[in-house]
Amino acid sequence: MRPESRSMRDSILAAAVQLFAQYGYHAAPLRDIARIAGIQAASIYHHYPSKQALLVEIMETHMQRLNTSLEYILKETDDPLQRLHDAIANHIRLHTTYKAEFFIIDTEMRALEEEHRPYILGLRDKYEALLQELLLDGMERDVFRRSDVKIASYAMIAMCTEVATWFRPDGRLSVQQVITIYRQFITEGLLHTPEVVAHMPDGAGHLL
Amino acid sequence: MRPESRSMRDSILAAAVQLFAQYGYHAAPLRDIARIAGIQAASIYHHYPSKQALLVEIMETHMQRLNTSLEYILKETDDPLQRLHDAIANHIRLHTTYKAEFFIIDTEMRALEEEHRPYILGLRDKYEALLQELLLDGMERDVFRRSDVKIASYAMIAMCTEVATWFRPDGRLSVQQVITIYRQFITEGLLHTPEVVAHMPDGAGHLL
Repeated sequence: MRPESRSMRDSILAAAVQLFAQYGYHAAPLRDIARIAGIQAASIYHHYPSKQALLVEIMETHMQRLNTSLEYILKETDDPLQRLHDAIANHIRLHTTYKAEFFIIDTEMRALEEEHRPYILGLRDKYEALLQELLLDGMERDVFRRSDVKIASYAMIAMCTEVATWFRPDGRLSVQQVITIYRQFITEGLLHTPEVVAHMPDGAGHLL
Repeated sequence: MRPESRSMRDSILAAAVQLFAQYGYHAAPLRDIARIAGIQAASIYHHYPSKQALLVEIMETHMQRLNTSLEYILKETDDPLQRLHDAIANHIRLHTTYKAEFFIIDTEMRALEEEHRPYILGLRDKYEALLQELLLDGMERDVFRRSDVKIASYAMIAMCTEVATWFRPDGRLSVQQVITIYRQFITEGLLHTPEVVAHMPDGAGHLL
Protein backbone atom coordinates (compact mmCIF):
# COMPACT_ATOMS: atom_id res chain seq x y z
CA MET A 1 0.00 0.00 0.00
CA ARG A 2 1.30 3.45 -0.88
CA PRO A 3 2.14 5.67 2.11
CA GLU A 4 -0.54 8.23 1.20
CA SER A 5 -3.19 5.48 1.17
CA ARG A 6 -2.08 4.30 4.59
CA SER A 7 -2.32 7.79 5.92
CA MET A 8 -5.76 8.34 4.33
CA ARG A 9 -6.99 5.09 5.88
CA ASP A 10 -5.78 6.35 9.26
CA SER A 11 -7.63 9.64 8.78
CA ILE A 12 -10.83 7.83 7.86
CA LEU A 13 -10.51 5.49 10.84
CA ALA A 14 -9.88 8.41 13.21
CA ALA A 15 -12.96 10.21 11.85
CA ALA A 16 -15.05 7.04 12.25
CA VAL A 17 -13.88 6.57 15.85
CA GLN A 18 -14.81 10.15 16.64
CA LEU A 19 -18.31 9.95 15.13
CA PHE A 20 -19.18 6.41 16.26
CA ALA A 21 -18.23 7.36 19.83
CA GLN A 22 -20.07 10.67 19.75
CA TYR A 23 -23.32 9.72 17.98
CA GLY A 24 -23.32 5.93 17.84
CA TYR A 25 -22.67 3.70 14.82
CA HIS A 26 -26.11 3.97 13.27
CA ALA A 27 -26.39 7.73 13.77
CA ALA A 28 -22.98 8.47 12.18
CA PRO A 29 -23.34 8.93 8.39
CA LEU A 30 -20.49 7.81 6.15
CA ARG A 31 -20.54 11.20 4.36
CA ASP A 32 -19.73 12.96 7.65
CA ILE A 33 -16.86 10.54 8.25
CA ALA A 34 -15.53 11.37 4.76
CA ARG A 35 -15.91 15.12 5.37
CA ILE A 36 -13.97 14.99 8.66
CA ALA A 37 -11.28 12.83 7.00
CA GLY A 38 -11.06 15.47 4.25
CA ILE A 39 -12.18 13.41 1.23
CA GLN A 40 -15.21 13.16 -1.03
CA ALA A 41 -17.94 10.84 0.22
CA ALA A 42 -17.62 8.66 -2.90
CA SER A 43 -13.84 8.29 -2.47
CA ILE A 44 -14.18 6.63 0.93
CA TYR A 45 -15.10 3.37 -0.83
CA HIS A 46 -11.59 3.21 -2.34
CA HIS A 47 -10.34 2.64 1.19
CA TYR A 48 -13.20 0.90 3.02
CA PRO A 49 -16.01 -1.01 1.31
CA SER A 50 -18.58 -0.02 3.95
CA LYS A 51 -19.23 1.65 7.30
CA GLN A 52 -19.37 -1.88 8.74
CA ALA A 53 -15.77 -2.49 7.60
CA LEU A 54 -14.71 0.53 9.65
CA LEU A 55 -16.48 -0.79 12.75
CA VAL A 56 -14.91 -4.22 12.37
CA GLU A 57 -11.41 -2.79 11.94
CA ILE A 58 -11.75 -0.54 15.01
CA MET A 59 -12.94 -3.45 17.16
CA GLU A 60 -10.45 -5.97 15.79
CA THR A 61 -7.41 -3.70 16.18
CA HIS A 62 -8.03 -2.84 19.81
CA MET A 63 -9.32 -6.20 20.99
CA GLN A 64 -6.25 -7.86 19.49
CA ARG A 65 -4.08 -5.25 21.19
CA LEU A 66 -5.68 -6.16 24.53
CA ASN A 67 -5.27 -9.90 23.93
CA THR A 68 -1.67 -9.67 22.76
CA SER A 69 -0.63 -7.67 25.81
CA LEU A 70 -2.33 -10.06 28.24
CA GLU A 71 -0.75 -13.05 26.47
CA TYR A 72 2.62 -11.36 26.90
CA ILE A 73 2.01 -10.89 30.65
CA LEU A 74 1.06 -14.56 31.07
CA LYS A 75 4.15 -15.64 29.13
CA GLU A 76 6.69 -13.33 30.78
CA THR A 77 5.52 -13.38 34.39
CA ASP A 78 5.02 -16.34 36.69
CA ASP A 79 3.97 -14.90 40.05
CA PRO A 80 0.11 -14.86 40.19
CA LEU A 81 -0.16 -11.58 42.11
CA GLN A 82 2.32 -9.82 39.81
CA ARG A 83 0.40 -11.14 36.82
CA LEU A 84 -2.85 -9.81 38.28
CA HIS A 85 -1.28 -6.42 38.97
CA ASP A 86 0.11 -6.27 35.43
CA ALA A 87 -3.21 -7.35 33.90
CA ILE A 88 -5.13 -4.63 35.80
CA ALA A 89 -2.57 -1.97 34.81
CA ASN A 90 -2.58 -3.13 31.19
CA HIS A 91 -6.39 -3.12 30.94
CA ILE A 92 -6.75 0.34 32.51
CA ARG A 93 -3.85 1.84 30.53
CA LEU A 94 -5.24 0.66 27.19
CA HIS A 95 -8.79 1.75 28.07
CA THR A 96 -7.69 5.24 29.13
CA THR A 97 -5.34 5.62 26.12
CA TYR A 98 -7.95 4.44 23.57
CA LYS A 99 -11.06 5.68 25.37
CA ALA A 100 -13.22 6.24 22.29
CA GLU A 101 -12.20 2.98 20.62
CA PHE A 102 -13.04 0.88 23.69
CA PHE A 103 -16.25 2.80 24.27
CA ILE A 104 -17.27 1.73 20.75
CA ILE A 105 -16.30 -1.88 21.51
CA ASP A 106 -18.34 -1.67 24.71
CA THR A 107 -21.51 -0.21 23.20
CA GLU A 108 -21.68 -1.24 19.52
CA MET A 109 -21.48 -5.05 19.59
CA ARG A 110 -25.11 -5.20 18.46
CA ALA A 111 -24.23 -3.03 15.42
CA LEU A 112 -22.05 -5.84 14.04
CA GLU A 113 -23.57 -7.63 11.09
CA GLU A 114 -24.09 -11.37 11.47
CA GLU A 115 -21.08 -12.38 9.39
CA HIS A 116 -18.64 -10.47 11.64
CA ARG A 117 -20.12 -11.25 15.03
CA PRO A 118 -18.52 -14.67 15.64
CA TYR A 119 -15.02 -13.37 14.91
CA ILE A 120 -15.30 -10.30 17.16
CA LEU A 121 -17.08 -12.22 19.95
CA GLY A 122 -14.29 -14.80 19.63
CA LEU A 123 -11.70 -12.10 20.39
CA ARG A 124 -13.67 -11.12 23.49
CA ASP A 125 -13.98 -14.76 24.59
CA LYS A 126 -10.23 -15.14 24.11
CA TYR A 127 -9.52 -12.23 26.48
CA GLU A 128 -11.89 -13.64 29.10
CA ALA A 129 -10.24 -17.05 28.77
CA LEU A 130 -6.75 -15.58 29.28
CA LEU A 131 -7.86 -13.71 32.40
CA GLN A 132 -9.61 -16.83 33.70
CA GLU A 133 -6.39 -18.81 33.14
CA LEU A 134 -4.54 -16.21 35.23
CA LEU A 135 -7.12 -16.35 38.03
CA LEU A 136 -7.42 -20.15 38.08
CA ASP A 137 -3.64 -20.57 38.25
CA GLY A 138 -3.55 -18.13 41.20
CA MET A 139 -6.30 -20.08 42.98
CA GLU A 140 -4.60 -23.41 42.40
CA ARG A 141 -1.42 -21.98 43.87
CA ASP A 142 -3.35 -20.64 46.89
CA VAL A 143 -2.47 -17.02 46.16
CA PHE A 144 -6.09 -16.20 45.32
CA ARG A 145 -9.13 -17.26 47.30
CA ARG A 146 -11.08 -20.06 45.60
CA SER A 147 -14.09 -18.50 43.95
CA ASP A 148 -16.02 -18.52 40.70
CA VAL A 149 -13.39 -17.83 38.04
CA LYS A 150 -15.85 -16.73 35.35
CA ILE A 151 -17.70 -14.28 37.59
CA ALA A 152 -14.42 -12.90 38.93
CA SER A 153 -13.20 -12.29 35.37
CA TYR A 154 -16.46 -10.60 34.35
CA ALA A 155 -16.41 -8.36 37.44
CA MET A 156 -12.79 -7.35 36.87
CA ILE A 157 -13.28 -6.64 33.19
CA ALA A 158 -16.44 -4.61 33.85
CA MET A 159 -14.92 -2.38 36.51
CA CYS A 160 -11.61 -1.82 34.69
CA THR A 161 -13.34 -1.21 31.35
CA GLU A 162 -15.63 1.41 32.80
CA VAL A 163 -12.65 3.58 33.80
CA ALA A 164 -12.69 4.70 30.15
CA THR A 165 -16.09 6.36 30.62
CA TRP A 166 -15.10 8.69 33.47
CA PHE A 167 -11.32 9.05 33.35
CA ARG A 168 -10.06 12.53 32.38
CA PRO A 169 -6.31 13.05 31.75
CA ASP A 170 -6.59 16.44 33.47
CA GLY A 171 -8.73 15.08 36.32
CA ARG A 172 -8.09 14.59 40.04
CA LEU A 173 -6.15 11.31 39.68
CA SER A 174 -3.41 10.11 37.33
CA VAL A 175 -3.79 6.82 35.47
CA GLN A 176 -1.20 5.33 37.82
CA GLN A 177 -3.20 6.39 40.90
CA VAL A 178 -6.36 4.87 39.46
CA ILE A 179 -4.47 1.63 38.77
CA THR A 180 -3.17 1.52 42.35
CA ILE A 181 -6.65 2.05 43.82
CA TYR A 182 -8.15 -0.64 41.53
CA ARG A 183 -5.40 -3.13 42.37
CA GLN A 184 -6.13 -2.77 46.07
CA PHE A 185 -9.89 -2.96 45.56
CA ILE A 186 -9.56 -6.12 43.46
CA THR A 187 -7.04 -7.90 45.65
CA GLU A 188 -8.17 -6.85 49.14
CA GLY A 189 -11.78 -5.74 48.78
CA LEU A 190 -13.48 -3.01 50.79
CA LEU A 191 -13.41 -4.61 54.22
CA HIS A 192 -11.02 -3.26 56.78
CA THR A 193 -8.99 -6.34 57.68
CA PRO A 194 -7.12 -6.35 60.96
CA GLU A 195 -3.66 -6.81 59.42
CA VAL A 196 -2.27 -5.57 62.68
CA VAL A 197 -2.43 -9.16 64.00
CA ALA A 198 0.68 -10.30 62.19
CA HIS A 199 2.68 -7.41 63.61
CA MET A 200 1.49 -7.77 67.20
CA PRO A 201 3.75 -9.05 69.91
CA ASP A 202 3.34 -12.76 70.59
CA GLY A 203 0.28 -13.47 72.61
CA ALA A 204 -1.61 -10.35 71.57
CA GLY A 205 -3.71 -12.20 68.98
CA HIS A 206 -6.42 -13.01 71.49
CA LEU A 207 -7.29 -9.33 71.79
CA LEU A 208 -9.08 -9.61 68.45
CA MET B 1 -56.15 8.87 32.79
CA ARG B 2 -58.57 6.20 31.58
CA PRO B 3 -57.46 2.62 32.28
CA GLU B 4 -57.23 1.75 28.58
CA SER B 5 -54.85 4.69 28.04
CA ARG B 6 -52.64 3.52 30.88
CA SER B 7 -52.50 0.06 29.40
CA MET B 8 -51.71 1.42 25.91
CA ARG B 9 -48.90 3.56 27.36
CA ASP B 10 -47.50 0.42 28.99
CA SER B 11 -47.64 -1.45 25.69
CA ILE B 12 -45.86 1.37 23.88
CA LEU B 13 -43.19 1.58 26.59
CA ALA B 14 -42.64 -2.18 26.49
CA ALA B 15 -42.26 -2.06 22.69
CA ALA B 16 -39.82 0.87 22.97
CA VAL B 17 -37.73 -0.99 25.58
CA GLN B 18 -37.57 -4.02 23.30
CA LEU B 19 -36.51 -2.08 20.19
CA PHE B 20 -34.15 0.39 21.89
CA ALA B 21 -32.33 -2.53 23.55
CA GLN B 22 -32.21 -4.62 20.40
CA TYR B 23 -31.27 -2.02 17.77
CA GLY B 24 -30.32 1.10 19.72
CA TYR B 25 -32.34 4.29 20.14
CA HIS B 26 -31.47 5.86 16.81
CA ALA B 27 -31.97 2.67 14.83
CA ALA B 28 -35.43 1.96 16.31
CA PRO B 29 -38.16 3.71 14.24
CA LEU B 30 -41.24 5.00 16.04
CA ARG B 31 -43.47 3.26 13.46
CA ASP B 32 -42.02 -0.12 14.48
CA ILE B 33 -42.66 0.69 18.14
CA ALA B 34 -46.28 1.49 17.23
CA ARG B 35 -46.61 -1.71 15.21
CA ILE B 36 -45.35 -3.91 18.09
CA ALA B 37 -47.61 -2.04 20.52
CA GLY B 38 -50.53 -2.75 18.17
CA ILE B 39 -51.50 0.80 17.19
CA GLN B 40 -51.26 3.05 14.13
CA ALA B 41 -48.02 5.00 13.85
CA ALA B 42 -49.92 8.31 13.96
CA SER B 43 -51.81 7.32 17.13
CA ILE B 44 -48.64 6.94 19.16
CA TYR B 45 -48.47 10.74 19.49
CA HIS B 46 -51.68 10.69 21.55
CA HIS B 47 -49.66 8.93 24.22
CA TYR B 48 -46.08 10.15 23.81
CA PRO B 49 -45.12 13.38 22.03
CA SER B 50 -41.86 11.90 20.69
CA LYS B 51 -39.43 8.98 20.68
CA GLN B 52 -37.30 11.05 23.05
CA ALA B 53 -40.16 11.16 25.57
CA LEU B 54 -40.14 7.34 25.61
CA LEU B 55 -36.40 7.26 26.27
CA VAL B 56 -36.67 9.78 29.10
CA GLU B 57 -39.54 7.88 30.75
CA ILE B 58 -37.67 4.54 30.57
CA MET B 59 -34.55 6.07 32.11
CA GLU B 60 -36.38 8.12 34.73
CA THR B 61 -38.57 5.26 35.94
CA HIS B 62 -35.75 2.82 36.53
CA MET B 63 -33.15 5.24 37.83
CA GLN B 64 -35.67 6.51 40.37
CA ARG B 65 -36.47 2.92 41.30
CA LEU B 66 -32.76 2.32 41.96
CA ASN B 67 -32.41 5.52 44.00
CA THR B 68 -35.54 4.96 46.07
CA SER B 69 -34.48 1.44 47.04
CA LEU B 70 -30.97 2.55 48.04
CA GLU B 71 -32.41 5.43 50.07
CA TYR B 72 -34.63 2.91 51.84
CA ILE B 73 -31.60 0.71 52.68
CA LEU B 74 -29.69 3.69 54.09
CA LYS B 75 -32.70 4.74 56.14
CA GLU B 76 -33.68 1.32 57.48
CA THR B 77 -30.26 -0.23 58.14
CA ASP B 78 -27.43 1.06 60.28
CA ASP B 79 -24.70 -1.59 60.11
CA PRO B 80 -22.25 -0.62 57.30
CA LEU B 81 -21.57 -4.19 56.15
CA GLN B 82 -25.29 -5.07 56.11
CA ARG B 83 -25.97 -1.89 54.15
CA LEU B 84 -23.27 -2.82 51.64
CA HIS B 85 -24.66 -6.35 51.30
CA ASP B 86 -28.17 -4.98 50.80
CA ALA B 87 -26.97 -2.38 48.28
CA ILE B 88 -25.17 -5.04 46.19
CA ALA B 89 -28.19 -7.35 46.28
CA ASN B 90 -30.56 -4.50 45.40
CA HIS B 91 -28.43 -3.33 42.46
CA ILE B 92 -28.00 -6.82 41.00
CA ARG B 93 -31.66 -7.78 41.54
CA LEU B 94 -32.96 -4.67 39.77
CA HIS B 95 -30.43 -5.03 36.93
CA THR B 96 -31.29 -8.69 36.33
CA THR B 97 -35.04 -8.05 36.62
CA TYR B 98 -35.04 -5.04 34.27
CA LYS B 99 -32.15 -6.11 32.04
CA ALA B 100 -33.25 -4.33 28.87
CA GLU B 101 -34.21 -1.11 30.68
CA PHE B 102 -30.83 -0.83 32.43
CA PHE B 103 -29.00 -1.77 29.25
CA ILE B 104 -30.67 1.25 27.64
CA ILE B 105 -29.70 3.46 30.58
CA ASP B 106 -26.13 2.16 30.27
CA THR B 107 -25.74 2.67 26.52
CA GLU B 108 -28.06 5.49 25.42
CA MET B 109 -27.08 8.44 27.62
CA ARG B 110 -25.66 10.18 24.55
CA ALA B 111 -29.05 9.81 22.80
CA LEU B 112 -30.63 12.17 25.34
CA GLU B 113 -31.39 15.60 23.94
CA GLU B 114 -29.73 18.53 25.70
CA GLU B 115 -32.85 19.61 27.58
CA HIS B 116 -33.22 16.21 29.31
CA ARG B 117 -29.57 15.45 30.04
CA PRO B 118 -29.15 17.43 33.29
CA TYR B 119 -32.19 15.78 34.90
CA ILE B 120 -31.20 12.21 33.99
CA LEU B 121 -27.51 12.76 34.83
CA GLY B 122 -28.73 14.21 38.13
CA LEU B 123 -30.51 10.94 38.94
CA ARG B 124 -27.28 9.05 38.22
CA ASP B 125 -25.26 11.47 40.38
CA LYS B 126 -27.80 11.00 43.16
CA TYR B 127 -27.29 7.22 43.14
CA GLU B 128 -23.50 7.60 43.19
CA ALA B 129 -23.80 10.07 46.09
CA LEU B 130 -25.96 7.64 48.10
CA LEU B 131 -23.49 4.81 47.57
CA GLN B 132 -20.59 7.10 48.45
CA GLU B 133 -22.42 8.09 51.66
CA LEU B 134 -22.72 4.38 52.54
CA LEU B 135 -19.02 3.74 51.83
CA LEU B 136 -17.75 6.83 53.65
CA ASP B 137 -19.81 6.02 56.73
CA GLY B 138 -18.35 2.49 56.74
CA MET B 139 -14.82 3.86 56.46
CA GLU B 140 -15.34 6.37 59.24
CA ARG B 141 -16.60 3.56 61.45
CA ASP B 142 -13.55 1.43 60.54
CA VAL B 143 -15.63 -1.34 58.97
CA PHE B 144 -14.29 -0.54 55.49
CA ARG B 145 -10.68 0.12 54.63
CA ARG B 146 -9.97 3.81 53.95
CA SER B 147 -9.79 4.26 50.23
CA ASP B 148 -11.02 6.54 47.48
CA VAL B 149 -14.80 6.66 47.98
CA LYS B 150 -15.59 7.89 44.46
CA ILE B 151 -13.47 5.26 42.72
CA ALA B 152 -14.87 2.53 44.97
CA SER B 153 -18.43 3.58 44.09
CA TYR B 154 -17.66 3.68 40.35
CA ALA B 155 -16.03 0.24 40.47
CA MET B 156 -18.95 -1.30 42.39
CA ILE B 157 -21.58 0.23 40.13
CA ALA B 158 -19.73 -0.86 36.99
CA MET B 159 -19.31 -4.48 38.03
CA CYS B 160 -22.82 -4.89 39.45
CA THR B 161 -24.42 -3.14 36.46
CA GLU B 162 -22.66 -5.36 33.97
CA VAL B 163 -24.33 -8.47 35.44
CA ALA B 164 -27.33 -7.41 33.31
CA THR B 165 -25.37 -8.05 30.11
CA TRP B 166 -24.51 -11.70 30.79
CA PHE B 167 -27.02 -12.97 33.35
CA ARG B 168 -29.47 -15.59 32.05
CA PRO B 169 -32.37 -16.73 34.29
CA ASP B 170 -31.84 -20.27 32.98
CA GLY B 171 -28.05 -20.10 33.30
CA ARG B 172 -25.53 -21.85 35.56
CA LEU B 173 -26.09 -19.56 38.57
CA SER B 174 -29.16 -18.13 40.28
CA VAL B 175 -29.40 -14.40 40.98
CA GLN B 176 -28.82 -15.17 44.65
CA GLN B 177 -25.62 -17.09 43.87
CA VAL B 178 -24.34 -14.22 41.74
CA ILE B 179 -25.11 -11.80 44.58
CA THR B 180 -23.21 -13.96 47.07
CA ILE B 181 -20.14 -14.17 44.81
CA TYR B 182 -20.18 -10.42 44.17
CA ARG B 183 -20.54 -9.65 47.89
CA GLN B 184 -17.46 -11.69 48.68
CA PHE B 185 -15.49 -10.21 45.78
CA ILE B 186 -16.37 -6.65 46.83
CA THR B 187 -15.78 -7.11 50.54
CA GLU B 188 -12.79 -9.48 50.58
CA GLY B 189 -11.17 -9.17 47.15
CA LEU B 190 -9.39 -11.93 45.29
CA LEU B 191 -6.45 -12.50 47.60
CA HIS B 192 -6.36 -15.60 49.72
CA THR B 193 -6.07 -14.13 53.20
CA PRO B 194 -4.74 -16.29 56.04
CA GLU B 195 -7.83 -15.85 58.24
CA VAL B 196 -6.48 -18.66 60.35
CA VAL B 197 -4.37 -16.09 62.26
CA ALA B 198 -7.19 -14.86 64.42
CA HIS B 199 -8.05 -18.40 65.43
CA MET B 200 -4.51 -19.49 66.28
CA PRO B 201 -3.48 -20.19 69.83
CA ASP B 202 -1.87 -17.23 71.56
CA GLY B 203 1.72 -16.82 70.56
CA ALA B 204 1.35 -18.44 67.14
CA GLY B 205 1.10 -15.10 65.35
CA HIS B 206 4.87 -14.84 64.84
CA LEU B 207 4.81 -17.87 62.53
CA LEU B 208 3.41 -15.65 59.80
